[in-house]
Amino acid sequence: MDTRPIGVFDSGIGGLTVVKEIMEFLPNENIVYFGDTARVPYGTKSAETVTRYAFQNTRFLLTKDVKAIVVACNTASAVSLDALQESFDIPIIGVIKPGAFAAVKATLNKKIGIIGTEGTVNSRAYERVIRKLLPEAEIYAYPCPLFVPIVEEGWANTKVSYMVAEEYLKPLKDSNIDSLVMGCTHYPLLMKVVDDVLEHKVKLINPARETALELKNILTEKGIENSQNVAAQYEYYVSDNPEKFKKVGGNFLEHDIINIKKIDIEKY
Amino acid sequence: MDTRPIGVFDSGIGGLTVVKEIMEFLPNENIVYFGDTARVPYGTKSAETVTRYAFQNTRFLLTKDVKAIVVACNTASAVSLDALQESFDIPIIGVIKPGAFAAVKATLNKKIGIIGTEGTVNSRAYERVIRKLLPEAEIYAYPCPLFVPIVEEGWANTKVSYMVAEEYLKPLKDSNIDSLVMGCTHYPLLMKVVDDVLEHKVKLINPARETALELKNILTEKGIENSQNVAAQYEYYVSDNPEKFKKVGGNFLEHDIINIKKIDIEKY
Repeated sequence: MDTRPIGVFDSGIGGLTVVKEIMEFLPNENIVYFGDTARVPYGTKSAETVTRYAFQNTRFLLTKDVKAIVVACNTASAVSLDALQESFDIPIIGVIKPGAFAAVKATLNKKIGIIGTEGTVNSRAYERVIRKLLPEAEIYAYPCPLFVPIVEEGWANTKVSYMVAEEYLKPLKDSNIDSLVMGCTHYPLLMKVVDDVLEHKVKLINPARETALELKNILTEKGIENSQNVAAQYEYYVSDNPEKFKKVGGNFLEHDIINIKKIDIEKY
Repeated sequence: MDTRPIGVFDSGIGGLTVVKEIMEFLPNENIVYFGDTARVPYGTKSAETVTRYAFQNTRFLLTKDVKAIVVACNTASAVSLDALQESFDIPIIGVIKPGAFAAVKATLNKKIGIIGTEGTVNSRAYERVIRKLLPEAEIYAYPCPLFVPIVEEGWANTKVSYMVAEEYLKPLKDSNIDSLVMGCTHYPLLMKVVDDVLEHKVKLINPARETALELKNILTEKGIENSQNVAAQYEYYVSDNPEKFKKVGGNFLEHDIINIKKIDIEKY
């Protein structure tokens, strides 16, 4: 039993899809979220830069006395998780492994699709984990750069998002995959669009949900879950533009963001 | 006569539309370009953050012995130009004033449209300059957040860009404007789409072109133009991901980017 909060960070707002799942599966846990809105996006930046940012974000969350950290950003999970785990003493989990495990569990024909930002796809991070578990897997990975701005514009269920999804998913439709990793934190908001475009034939994996379940396992194993039955507290920090975070964040969490502060992340 | 280079900076790759116009109108001038690809975009960041970045970018360009600086970024021109001009001794020009002047010159019915990023539109920078020159102007300003990622995806002339433009420009079609400021450095690549969607009824102002003309005037006035008739040299610096800059930059410049280096902008 440990009432300290869970730390979650992301390059921006997308990690709120992970927060949403943690709230659902671990309703007692306090959460401190950091969104690096001054330096978003990470997906187009080099591994070196992303790792430097990930360390700063982790050091900031540690000042909030967190008991575990979730790297809710696919790019940072892909390129920086090992270094973080080696350098810090608390449990740190990313979204890649839980997503990859779920895909391997879900597939029957061993044809797995992955969509994400350019950074995530080019890093081949999901691919590497999937191949370790299922060496004979056929993997089809495609970047979908417009999906993030579409979600942030609030256009997730419009004609534009369907047209863009048709374009990006064309090669996946021809590939006969039976499961698809939604490998970017924004993409769960496009679940319906992707499902419709793929004609409900493909099992969609939401790494945000798988990560929350993995976090639950780890807290239980280590006996550090919070079983106190009082309303959990949620604090949000951003490196820039808290107003926009508040406004757009509602679409992700389906409830209001109250405690939000701007910090100078370069200091950590 | 002065053979020192012109310094140009932008939050990323978009400023290359300004470089392209400088190459056309000032073919003898050497150019040093800095694209802040590690911290792009500026449009969603606070004025304070953008100004800090603009100072770093300027200090970097000064290490290259530039004789004048063009702030090719609408957001930085909008929020940081005055502070830069007060702090440094060489001519520094932005893209806002030249664009606003051209719009005022172009309009007959005094109804002027402005499109740009959220940052530029919310700053009301074009609006302020236009109103100073033409207080009775009716101004219609709208952000078009998806235009930048569409251009960077290389989708400038596709069905998706037409559909997105139809959506964004709907209120402008009803407003009876006769001129429109393309208030983001990426937007010149969407000139044809916007012109088609507005049914060729609106005069489109390209601030990149107007800025190059303004720079030409200033160099001539001060007698610091480069009249040496040898091939001009172009150097490019970015804060991250030179490979992507090289690849996408071709669409902007219509010729190859050769001399490109990555630098650590946080040091300046």
